[in-house]
Amino acid sequence: MEIITAVEALKTQSRQWRSKGKTIVLVPTMGYFHEGHLSLIREGRRQGDILVVSLFVNPTQFAPSEDFDTYPKDFERDRRLAEQIGVDVIFYPDNNEMYPSEYKTYIEVSELGRKLCGVSRPTFFRGVTTVVLKLFTIVQPHVVLFGWKDAQQFIIIQRMVEDLNLDVQLIGMPIVREPDGLAMSSRNAYLSSQERKEATVLYSALQKVQSLIGEGVTEAAQLRSEMETIVRSAPSVRIDYIHIVSLHDLQQLDHVEHGKTLIGLAVFIGNTRLIDNIRV
Amino acid sequence: MEIITAVEALKTQSRQWRSKGKTIVLVPTMGYFHEGHLSLIREGRRQGDILVVSLFVNPTQFAPSEDFDTYPKDFERDRRLAEQIGVDVIFYPDNNEMYPSEYKTYIEVSELGRKLCGVSRPTFFRGVTTVVLKLFTIVQPHVVLFGWKDAQQFIIIQRMVEDLNLDVQLIGMPIVREPDGLAMSSRNAYLSSQERKEATVLYSALQKVQSLIGEGVTEAAQLRSEMETIVRSAPSVRIDYIHIVSLHDLQQLDHVEHGKTLIGLAVFIGNTRLIDNIRV
Repeated sequence: MEIITAVEALKTQSRQWRSKGKTIVLVPTMGYFHEGHLSLIREGRRQGDILVVSLFVNPTQFAPSEDFDTYPKDFERDRRLAEQIGVDVIFYPDNNEMYPSEYKTYIEVSELGRKLCGVSRPTFFRGVTTVVLKLFTIVQPHVVLFGWKDAQQFIIIQRMVEDLNLDVQLIGMPIVREPDGLAMSSRNAYLSSQERKEATVLYSALQKVQSLIGEGVTEAAQLRSEMETIVRSAPSVRIDYIHIVSLHDLQQLDHVEHGKTLIGLAVFIGNTRLIDNIRV
Repeated sequence: MEIITAVEALKTQSRQWRSKGKTIVLVPTMGYFHEGHLSLIREGRRQGDILVVSLFVNPTQFAPSEDFDTYPKDFERDRRLAEQIGVDVIFYPDNNEMYPSEYKTYIEVSELGRKLCGVSRPTFFRGVTTVVLKLFTIVQPHVVLFGWKDAQQFIIIQRMVEDLNLDVQLIGMPIVREPDGLAMSSRNAYLSSQERKEATVLYSALQKVQSLIGEGVTEAAQLRSEMETIVRSAPSVRIDYIHIVSLHDLQQLDHVEHGKTLIGLAVFIGNTRLIDNIRV
């Protein structure tokens, strides 16, 4: 396994792989691997000849008030885990390599980036689409894997790929959960033990609506209110949003449409922001 | 010569050319060819194996008040001229092919796009960078030619190419002028005969500063005021801007720096907006 930190070095490599007809797979990450990341990396290993995992805590997707400086890191552990799975290259650039001092170019997917998480994080998706496009041009992947935990991110990147006529196949992988249902996230590490217990309400609320939908309930207002009741039962949890929207364009739905609906929520537990979702 | 209107058809072609090791050259245009366009196309013919000329009046770079609907067109003449020079493919998509109804993705080069022409045309460069990036992903060119008449556009696209790590070589071609010095532009067709006469003040002003600089004058304020005097001598001409800026980042300069300075102006003559510039 090779660790590449220079953009130009990786571009040269990618051109060579492509000219030899290799299929290149990319798993973009911010590191501090949990089972969610590892499930993407394992599937990535199966999807092509060359597996590149990028490991870059992307400053442009953090607002000044957010946790860029304290985002958890453990490069040695990540490196070991990646090697065990058979990753070919870890791309591990520093900020200056990705965003030199004169950097000025941003990609924005209008509307989609201002809904859901975009309300409390208005510049987040602009940072995500910008770094993802750069990773695409640097790594030149045929296949890229993302987790459905970041559902809005996946939908926005799909839109960008289609709009910009990019030749990239996106694969969305299922959310990986702790035994008690909490979606895996690097930010779970921020939780105190009391907060960690209360964090289970996200998935409980999603399970509840799933069972109500199974019983035939489709009205979004009713489903949202059931979720609110469950989430509010946890005293440290503050709701950022609960949304029942179209998987296609993130528009609010009045009624669940089977096969086309995203039910997502975001909460603050203390200072930690957590998200979760199901697709119905 | 082939005329391709479908994005996917051209992408497939480009992939084949690339896999055969062909060098692809792109000249992006909005059509209605004048000698400026033809100089780019002729040089493009010399720069590689496959020459693609795109011909697309890009709606996203026009504001609602601007001349999108009346922009001059003559496809048959353009087709004939392109064929004479030996163009391989004219890419001639319609609006829906480039911007389907669900289109949402835009590229912005912050700061640079808000200066000079970006003051009176605040969404212009966002439209330009977006369509140019799409043309790059569709045509997959190795070499792309632009004219220096659109100096700010060239500088912004250079920034985008560098920021987004794109593998594209940009070539900037000299401004082509009418015998009386007026820079060639498709919009010159809008001018009445009186306006056409007065339009020569743009180049007269630029020639004047060039000769003053030759005599050792470097103070930007003095040079700007000399240009203003000349431009104001034409009664139909209204100044949009006269700027003496760094070629690198478009920052205003107090003094001309040799080899690093762009002197540009934009005026309205009646409803027609014209631009011109020199590099010093």
